[in-house]
Amino acid sequence: MVAGDPPLYYRLHVFICTNRRPDGHPRGSCAGRGSEPLRDYLKARVKELGLGEVRVNAAGCLDRCELGPTLVVYPDGIWYRITNHDDVDEILTSHLLRGQRVPRLMLRPEDGPNGGSAVA
Amino acid sequence: MVAGDPPLYYRLHVFICTNRRPDGHPRGSCAGRGSEPLRDYLKARVKELGLGEVRVNAAGCLDRCELGPTLVVYPDGIWYRITNHDDVDEILTSHLLRGQRVPRLMLRPEDGPNGGSAVA
Repeated sequence: MVAGDPPLYYRLHVFICTNRRPDGHPRGSCAGRGSEPLRDYLKARVKELGLGEVRVNAAGCLDRCELGPTLVVYPDGIWYRITNHDDVDEILTSHLLRGQRVPRLMLRPEDGPNGGSAVA
Repeated sequence: MVAGDPPLYYRLHVFICTNRRPDGHPRGSCAGRGSEPLRDYLKARVKELGLGEVRVNAAGCLDRCELGPTLVVYPDGIWYRITNHDDVDEILTSHLLRGQRVPRLMLRPEDGPNGGSAVA
């Protein structure tokens, strides 16, 4: 953010990878690992809770295919791996509602592009 | 960001709406307004320039349909409307390369959810 930037439209904006590769692709894909129903579940829970300041979006390939299903929460830039409703609920309760982190589900720094952060 | 957060995987992460609604839908859609070739162009230019610290992703509906094609740049949280290659090039040169803003293409604060920011 720089001085003069407008306020954020959303306090938190979640992007869940729903990319699907063909069956048998060596990298697999988040949709192939079940991301779509998890996306639907998170969207439904956010709506039920009336969290209008949080938006949940599908995204194309986030390039963490082997670790999927993955999501990233902005503007925080925190990446998670989710595999079931309990994971989604914990991210919802801890991160999306309270701004905390869920270390057990966070991707590691070395899971970033080229084995680390791409930021110089 | 909170203390202890890992470094960002990407300096800037761009999400372009490629949602497509059926022809004749009253809100229209970003894909219906030409977002997909603009997404392809931006991805190709970022690759040509070797901007490994910038990632460009397709996204589902960003809910600014009437204003599309739209994109959002995180972690900055800056929203743009793009309509042609010149717009993409200007965002690339000014924002993605230099961290500046392109005011003529930015969505306005009142273009946010419910006519403003959803952040309390």
